[in-house]
Amino acid sequence: MEFTLHQIAQILKGEVRGDGNQKINTLAKIQEARPGQIAFLANPKYEQYIYTTNASAIIVARDFQPKKEIRSALILVDDPYSSFTILMEQYHKMISFQKSGVEQPSYISESATIGSNAYRGAFSYIGNKTRIGDNVKIYPQVFVGDDVVIGNNVILHPNVKIYARTRIGNNVVIHAGTVIGSDGFGFAPQEDGSYKTIPQMGNVVIEDDVTIGANTVIDCATLQGDSTIIRQGVKMDNLIQIAHNVEVGKNTVIAAQTGISGSTKIGESCMIAGQVGIAGHLVVANQTSLGAQTGVSKSITEEGQRLLGYPAIDIKDYFRSYAVYKKLPEIAHRVRDLEKKLSGQDPHTVETPKNRQN
Amino acid sequence: MEFTLHQIAQILKGEVRGDGNQKINTLAKIQEARPGQIAFLANPKYEQYIYTTNASAIIVARDFQPKKEIRSALILVDDPYSSFTILMEQYHKMISFQKSGVEQPSYISESATIGSNAYRGAFSYIGNKTRIGDNVKIYPQVFVGDDVVIGNNVILHPNVKIYARTRIGNNVVIHAGTVIGSDGFGFAPQEDGSYKTIPQMGNVVIEDDVTIGANTVIDCATLQGDSTIIRQGVKMDNLIQIAHNVEVGKNTVIAAQTGISGSTKIGESCMIAGQVGIAGHLVVANQTSLGAQTGVSKSITEEGQRLLGYPAIDIKDYFRSYAVYKKLPEIAHRVRDLEKKLSGQDPHTVETPKNRQN
Amino acid sequence: MEFTLHQIAQILKGEVRGDGNQKINTLAKIQEARPGQIAFLANPKYEQYIYTTNASAIIVARDFQPKKEIRSALILVDDPYSSFTILMEQYHKMISFQKSGVEQPSYISESATIGSNAYRGAFSYIGNKTRIGDNVKIYPQVFVGDDVVIGNNVILHPNVKIYARTRIGNNVVIHAGTVIGSDGFGFAPQEDGSYKTIPQMGNVVIEDDVTIGANTVIDCATLQGDSTIIRQGVKMDNLIQIAHNVEVGKNTVIAAQTGISGSTKIGESCMIAGQVGIAGHLVVANQTSLGAQTGVSKSITEEGQRLLGYPAIDIKDYFRSYAVYKKLPEIAHRVRDLEKKLSGQDPHTVETPKNRQN
Repeated sequence: MEFTLHQIAQILKGEVRGDGNQKINTLAKIQEARPGQIAFLANPKYEQYIYTTNASAIIVARDFQPKKEIRSALILVDDPYSSFTILMEQYHKMISFQKSGVEQPSYISESATIGSNAYRGAFSYIGNKTRIGDNVKIYPQVFVGDDVVIGNNVILHPNVKIYARTRIGNNVVIHAGTVIGSDGFGFAPQEDGSYKTIPQMGNVVIEDDVTIGANTVIDCATLQGDSTIIRQGVKMDNLIQIAHNVEVGKNTVIAAQTGISGSTKIGESCMIAGQVGIAGHLVVANQTSLGAQTGVSKSITEEGQRLLGYPAIDIKDYFRSYAVYKKLPEIAHRVRDLEKKLSGQDPHTVETPKNRQN
Repeated sequence: MEFTLHQIAQILKGEVRGDGNQKINTLAKIQEARPGQIAFLANPKYEQYIYTTNASAIIVARDFQPKKEIRSALILVDDPYSSFTILMEQYHKMISFQKSGVEQPSYISESATIGSNAYRGAFSYIGNKTRIGDNVKIYPQVFVGDDVVIGNNVILHPNVKIYARTRIGNNVVIHAGTVIGSDGFGFAPQEDGSYKTIPQMGNVVIEDDVTIGANTVIDCATLQGDSTIIRQGVKMDNLIQIAHNVEVGKNTVIAAQTGISGSTKIGESCMIAGQVGIAGHLVVANQTSLGAQTGVSKSITEEGQRLLGYPAIDIKDYFRSYAVYKKLPEIAHRVRDLEKKLSGQDPHTVETPKNRQN
Repeated sequence: MEFTLHQIAQILKGEVRGDGNQKINTLAKIQEARPGQIAFLANPKYEQYIYTTNASAIIVARDFQPKKEIRSALILVDDPYSSFTILMEQYHKMISFQKSGVEQPSYISESATIGSNAYRGAFSYIGNKTRIGDNVKIYPQVFVGDDVVIGNNVILHPNVKIYARTRIGNNVVIHAGTVIGSDGFGFAPQEDGSYKTIPQMGNVVIEDDVTIGANTVIDCATLQGDSTIIRQGVKMDNLIQIAHNVEVGKNTVIAAQTGISGSTKIGESCMIAGQVGIAGHLVVANQTSLGAQTGVSKSITEEGQRLLGYPAIDIKDYFRSYAVYKKLPEIAHRVRDLEKKLSGQDPHTVETPKNRQN
């Protein structure tokens, strides 16, 4: 895929300075760009690189005043960063939506429907009464169960597994091996110590613009009519566990290997790092930031906090406490010394390796 | 699926009060039930809801004495909770065992056998000499290797992968993407720093009534004749790691993202929360309860303990210590103050922001 | 598979003492071996077992002097341990490389090539322009995307998913459900709180002799031309997360459920236990040993350290601090007592349950 600078400027409503017929094949950072690549300059901190970069072209602000000669062509725009992200997004779509047609053998129920410009890879499976929109890319070995509804411009990477009754919006990307809609973990204890399975009859709803990583699992809600909900714009990484009846708020980002227990509601625009664990039936306020490996065992009601530890406390307090934690044996020893002093013994004279128990 | 109250009463050996021809299509909690649903009342705490619920019917104890008028029909039984769980289990089976027949293309070795009333989804694979019982549901893209034995009433959700030589009992449910019988993690260090693979020749045994979540992994045992064993009635959640030669005792429950290292034996009726890690070659006593993110590095020999932290300690002690942990900087400061006081300085007069290093 | 002792002695360049025509079908530990099995004696600590074992044969050092009668046949070699690991490796290869031929239906692009002695299981998929070497075993439902290069003697277990552009060396084993080359987790924040996807255009490179467990995920690098790299001889367990642009050094071992964040470089011959988390953009020195559940938030520059905790500190310091941590409530109480004493109150006389707040 190659574009001329003229074509790119048109997408960005920008102006070319230099040879507009040059061809660009990919994007790069200004400090790393090579010929054939386009980069951008938004932060003045990086200005030095514009005079030395090998990029074929740089996206800059209309009012940018170069202090030295620049070898690269320029595209002048109102906001270089947002122009670059538009380009990224376009590029991402282009490379992601190349596949089309139907590879055989693949399986589609007679009662299922699929829109225009679809890709259906070999060994993919689409169940009964399932309705799928336009421009959807279903890679090989994907499973889509019965009564599923999927919007437009969705990509299901190899071997994604969508259980029955799931709802998926537009512009959703799900990576390989991820499971959507498996049974919630619900069992009723019996008198003899065994458990009976509580039927899991709800579903999963994934709104527009959600991206989900590989080998992640999202369980369905327990009761018929209820849903586990992933709100618009959520970005989830690999190997994440989302239990039954969880709701993840708009534009929240969750890193790899984090687990959220049943019925917990996560707010909007939260940043949840990797390997975090959140207990069930909690509320996490908007804009909460949770450090890696944090354990949340109580609801977080104040917005915008940065927390760490188990149970989670303010990140600065955590590090202050941890700094002392590392010296705990010394502190315990000093407390012992004080006690001895106060009871009339001077520890520096009476202590021996034998009676000192560290 | 709809049943009349009469039919349900028959299953539960109960008595109908009200219109026994009413149709019920699903189950619900008494405080949330809608028309067409059946609920139960066992705990007197919920009695208030029986006078206001929209449920079509309520299961109650034979000796229940209503204090006000009840709009719903009633089914009188000996034990409402256990009757409701029986109904749940029946309902669960009904919705789980609907599929039947063989979708094409699917693959079954000529030397494999499968019992009556089977479902084999498209792109499912059954290897050489594998023997599968009656009423087994094998969803699309499931892999069952060579020399596997599977009992009756088993459900393998899409893309479950069963390695060669695995043994699976009756009434087992395994969710999508789970791997049973992959190689144990065993390597012999060589003098040059490299590792040689120790061949993994044992298998995995899963007893009756076990449920396993999605994208979980259970490794096979190392030596021929040995097994990694999941005992009867165990319930396991998603993304769990069970290493080679582990044994999980009867009716133990394990939540998501927990990992159990090689050769560890977990007792019966344990409750293991999410993201717990248990080291190798340990024993965990019956009825042990492990809080989320706990790390177990020593055997637990006393039954019935509730533990938390890393290494795991009694859960109450953990929270007591953590309460102090949060105040550690303050305590360290108070110890310093005490030391200054004892050495003749009054910290409250001599301390300045500059010489105080917190 | 059975071999005579003569055949085994030939592989090991050893000498048989006893009946060289005996047949051996598998390997075992000396203390557990049964007839038909071969074991080894290297550590004098285990010498007692050689006089009682039921093994058909034992590999011993040429200079071994028995103190009693031995019933088993012997194979005399220079180095019994390394001879046994050679045998293990041979055995492992034999049992792993049995499959051959092509099961139908399976899918291979017309532009893909595959070497001699291949196994391609049913429902496996090989994409455009992909090149695969000799003696490669591709199990059922494996997905290999476009433009992938795979070496010789590689085993891809059921349902492994290899994204486009991945490079895999020789003698690599990847277990079921593992995903190689999924998109790195990269999103550019927008002013309205939403995120745009940063296109992930790099790939994954897996060098020779690497083993990867089940349901693990390795993301591709972000920029075109860059790679996430797993160096020669690395051994990785199940459910591990390797983010974009990570490099794992030669002969490093990583246990289950560990996660390594973006752009971090792990040194050679490290031992990383289970459920460890390592933050992004760090360097971890060669021979670092990280205990289970450790959190690494800073680079580790000194080689050969053993660390534990979050943030990671020296393992001995961690356990010393934890020993005090368990007594924190008592220490806090003793500090309070000291303060009261110093301010003139004797806590043992004035304290009451009411004013003591523990």
